[in-house]
Amino acid sequence: MEKFKVIFYPSNKNIGVDNGTTILSAAISAGVYINSVCGGDGVCGKCKIKLLKGQVATQPTGSITTKEIENSIYLACLTTIHSDLEIEIPASSALDLEKTNSRDLDISLKTFYSESDEIILPELKDSEKTILDAALTRKLYIELTPPNLDDKTSDLERLYRAITNITGISLIQTGLINIRLLGELLRSSDWKITITFIEKNINQIEIILVEPGDKSRENFGFCFDIGTTTLSGQLIDLNTKKVLSSRAQYNKQVSLGSDVISRIIYAQQPDGLEKLHLAVSEGINQIIQELTEAHKINLNDVTSIVCAGNTTMIHLLLRIDPRHIRKEPYIPTVNFLPLLKAAEVGIKINPHGVLYCVPGVASYLGGDVTAGVLSCGLHKQPKTSILIDIGTNGEVVLGNNEFLIGCAASAGPAFEGSGVNSGMRATKGAIQKVRINPKEFNVEFSTIGNILPQGICGSGYIDLLAEMLNCGLINKIGKINDLNSPRIRKNEFGNEFVVVFKKDGASETDIVISEIDIDNIKRAKAAIYSSVTTLLKHVNLNLTDVTKFYIAGGFGTYLDIPNAIKIGLLPDLPRDKFLFIGNSSLSGARQMILSNQARVDAKEIARKIAYLELSVESSYIDEYMAALFFPHTDLTKFPSFNS
Amino acid sequence: MEKFKVIFYPSNKNIGVDNGTTILSAAISAGVYINSVCGGDGVCGKCKIKLLKGQVATQPTGSITTKEIENSIYLACLTTIHSDLEIEIPASSALDLEKTNSRDLDISLKTFYSESDEIILPELKDSEKTILDAALTRKLYIELTPPNLDDKTSDLERLYRAITNITGISLIQTGLINIRLLGELLRSSDWKITITFIEKNINQIEIILVEPGDKSRENFGFCFDIGTTTLSGQLIDLNTKKVLSSRAQYNKQVSLGSDVISRIIYAQQPDGLEKLHLAVSEGINQIIQELTEAHKINLNDVTSIVCAGNTTMIHLLLRIDPRHIRKEPYIPTVNFLPLLKAAEVGIKINPHGVLYCVPGVASYLGGDVTAGVLSCGLHKQPKTSILIDIGTNGEVVLGNNEFLIGCAASAGPAFEGSGVNSGMRATKGAIQKVRINPKEFNVEFSTIGNILPQGICGSGYIDLLAEMLNCGLINKIGKINDLNSPRIRKNEFGNEFVVVFKKDGASETDIVISEIDIDNIKRAKAAIYSSVTTLLKHVNLNLTDVTKFYIAGGFGTYLDIPNAIKIGLLPDLPRDKFLFIGNSSLSGARQMILSNQARVDAKEIARKIAYLELSVESSYIDEYMAALFFPHTDLTKFPSFNS
Repeated sequence: MEKFKVIFYPSNKNIGVDNGTTILSAAISAGVYINSVCGGDGVCGKCKIKLLKGQVATQPTGSITTKEIENSIYLACLTTIHSDLEIEIPASSALDLEKTNSRDLDISLKTFYSESDEIILPELKDSEKTILDAALTRKLYIELTPPNLDDKTSDLERLYRAITNITGISLIQTGLINIRLLGELLRSSDWKITITFIEKNINQIEIILVEPGDKSRENFGFCFDIGTTTLSGQLIDLNTKKVLSSRAQYNKQVSLGSDVISRIIYAQQPDGLEKLHLAVSEGINQIIQELTEAHKINLNDVTSIVCAGNTTMIHLLLRIDPRHIRKEPYIPTVNFLPLLKAAEVGIKINPHGVLYCVPGVASYLGGDVTAGVLSCGLHKQPKTSILIDIGTNGEVVLGNNEFLIGCAASAGPAFEGSGVNSGMRATKGAIQKVRINPKEFNVEFSTIGNILPQGICGSGYIDLLAEMLNCGLINKIGKINDLNSPRIRKNEFGNEFVVVFKKDGASETDIVISEIDIDNIKRAKAAIYSSVTTLLKHVNLNLTDVTKFYIAGGFGTYLDIPNAIKIGLLPDLPRDKFLFIGNSSLSGARQMILSNQARVDAKEIARKIAYLELSVESSYIDEYMAALFFPHTDLTKFPSFNS
Repeated sequence: MEKFKVIFYPSNKNIGVDNGTTILSAAISAGVYINSVCGGDGVCGKCKIKLLKGQVATQPTGSITTKEIENSIYLACLTTIHSDLEIEIPASSALDLEKTNSRDLDISLKTFYSESDEIILPELKDSEKTILDAALTRKLYIELTPPNLDDKTSDLERLYRAITNITGISLIQTGLINIRLLGELLRSSDWKITITFIEKNINQIEIILVEPGDKSRENFGFCFDIGTTTLSGQLIDLNTKKVLSSRAQYNKQVSLGSDVISRIIYAQQPDGLEKLHLAVSEGINQIIQELTEAHKINLNDVTSIVCAGNTTMIHLLLRIDPRHIRKEPYIPTVNFLPLLKAAEVGIKINPHGVLYCVPGVASYLGGDVTAGVLSCGLHKQPKTSILIDIGTNGEVVLGNNEFLIGCAASAGPAFEGSGVNSGMRATKGAIQKVRINPKEFNVEFSTIGNILPQGICGSGYIDLLAEMLNCGLINKIGKINDLNSPRIRKNEFGNEFVVVFKKDGASETDIVISEIDIDNIKRAKAAIYSSVTTLLKHVNLNLTDVTKFYIAGGFGTYLDIPNAIKIGLLPDLPRDKFLFIGNSSLSGARQMILSNQARVDAKEIARKIAYLELSVESSYIDEYMAALFFPHTDLTKFPSFNS
């Protein structure tokens, strides 16, 4: 097969590919990340590249104009390579992972993982510390009595006997690979060894590793939240139960599709599943490597990892075909995963290390939600509370220590900055707070990182809409009033409002909000609000029955609660009922790597949550339609707004 | 590295090898089997070859004469290759596996596996047949209810739920590989599938395989006895619980050492362990392939295998270094193996198939003995019995349903035809029965296969010695009397007796028995007899307390009991107390593949047998010395011989 060399600028990365390969596919192979929100279907128009040199073939699509093609602008996903090429990736298409990797996201991580967010574990008794310590993987140093002619117990049974003597546990297993090494290892270490073990069932353990000498203090693990957009990880000392370091970066799958549906579609392409799998496992490996290097920890001393993620993310991590998740009746292959070997899915820790995936509830209510419930403790409280997690997907869980019910709010990614004109993720340069002068409509704003504005993130949109309502710039259905201001102008589809003029920002265009944008946000907030009310109605409860309202997700960290109520995203409850809990998926995963009880609880939570399919819930559409106003058609539901 | 071509005659097999390779090693690689009793140490002198052409280098040794080297006769183990070679393997050195593979051993197998030897299982109730059938691997056909919007259980939990509904078992596991395939498999098979599962603990199963459609009737397994000399296997239909076919062949390790000690030594050579491991796993694979082909059974339908063998054989099968077995205090790495994947040790059945190794007791009391006890039921009987298994190693177990005690009798391989002048294994051409005319000392004999005699096997030696005692040819210490007969002549070390003159046999020399041979056999029989009496003494019992005396091993099949008592191999008990049980290791393994209860019992037996180390038992040496007579120094112990 003919091979062509493709060079990508400005990174200068190059790759040899077969004739007919798409530019998007070549870019992924070369490690050049291009936005591809729709998963390579030619729909989103985000993956535009400029051809500098060479022969390509492309397909017509509405996402690119004839004029662009005349100017050598192509969609990477629809354009195939037929000679050596030189290609430029415009800044607008680039997903520069290296730039945004950790530094930019560190800001939000600091907020996620404040001191108060560290989980507080009850002090362990000394007697418990040796063995009843319930981390996912535990180490135990053992000095064996060497054999003699009066005690000829075999090496393995001698080890088992010692473990039983120390722990009281008599059901012990291990694999052939450990048995093969045991004879020499015991003798060369003078019968002093450290075992690493996991608890399989009650009073049943499996030894996953045997090492010479005392290695009991070197036992580390990682917990991860695999978000559709962001991958967040923490390095944990499993002995001291301390978080040593945190890191977040884009989920590299972002370049293969912005949401779970486009990724499931992408997975159906040849090698699609494998690429998605590699994208996430490489990301995990990168974080593991970075943090262990920074702390001078040997990868072999990392013995376990816990991953929380939505159901599709977990399927992709494990290279399980997710196709049935998006086909009616929306069935995942698995919600409750067995404990796996990390190596089975390409995660590079100790080769005997294990991977625990947090159990999920349904196709659109995953382990990240289970972890969230565990983290906020909603399942233990006698009084009823609500958890909403607004990420790329929105999820809502309602309940108490007697019942749990949850649903997926098909909010869409508007609050993540997708599908809106000047939208961007909550990273550096994103407008996150807005005030509008009610007379001249001048806009004051602050950006993440305090640099020139590049666009607007979710919390910025909420502030913006609330302020526009305050100033009479928009009406209750979201139309921009025809007021006399240089900031208000007409476009093809209606009015738009200029938030930042090009000259005042870092964007190549004015930063604007259009009536179409407002409509998108309105639908997103209506979906979340009506999910809450539909759940309540389903169990015959009212908003007044809700004692706590937990808000999870990176989004929540910047959210202005009064403004979120003003636009009707959150219900009009006393402000002190709202609690930000940050990345509760990650906190829950961290509890699970540290505590056996947390893993037992997580299983129980996932089993207990009744999943409500909103699309077949008759009242949902009424609730949703009623919420398509700012804040709502029924203003009695928003008394503070009414007064 | 320079490569040389070596051709072996008469097989015409050839191989390319590196400069400096030993001829023995080249022969093994070429699939040419050469006797190498000492494991390639240049001691036994059994691996003589004739160099027809080419350059070699050799080392001096007492096992080969200068004259032989002048005649181009070399020891294969000590001679290295330095040019292209042509080599002839003399019949005396050849271990022609193809010839002896199955046909010759079929004779003994027929005797081992008579109709009465088939285990009789209680009839299963219909309700039990679907699931409570307790084969090691079981299949279950399941028709699942497809999901719908009201039943959105995931694929895996749907499967688990169905299994729980059918079996009542709720602890169910499976591996990632099965989960990955599940989604498509369930849908393409219209939700009709067959699972193969194993029971892990009580009420806990693991699914090892999921197949489309109804495959519940195609479930096969193999049981093996891995003897030091002979490998015997049976193909079992796990559904009908019938033995479909049996096969035995040499354990290919024979060419790397004749007994466990020489193999343990060989395992310390570079690649030695690997070669020993491959020799046995290839043998197993050969039998599996032959028998499945003969029965037109797909290898994928073979889901489990049970192996019984002595502790060293099991270590070598699993590629576990056995070195500590022969070093004081003689500790094996493992007696109780976990259930393994057959593929982990290179056994070619279904890639998900499992391997169960029968648990052993100690370094020199292995799973073959556990299987033997299980097979004869000694552990269940209220009255005390004895089991002796005389193979390349001899083992004795004494006990009843309250206690079990066992020991290894260091009998040596004399009864297997090793270490004795005209000795041979119990295959075609071996003298197995002998009568001597008391006047002229003419010898009448019968051979296995009724062909011209080539040598004498164990049962032949027992007959021969008993007859020589009867005729006054030997005295009670085993010296051959100086009688006037052409059959009695002097050699370097004393007298010898000609059993068959060269002209009457198929051997290149006279078939003789020397005083050294008699001494070897005397020591072997004394070791076995004194093991029995030492065990009895240890628990304060007498021979009269023994109600049954089980004799296991291929050897036992031809044994003449009165003659064995006459020479003092067996104690002088009423003849009806002796029971031949054939290859009880294989019968026990077969029970274990068919019955969960048998596996539970085997574990219990292995735990229960107290191992008596004869070398540190003070009374043993006295017992042994007293038995170094025909039949014994204390004739009151042999009243029938006395009368």
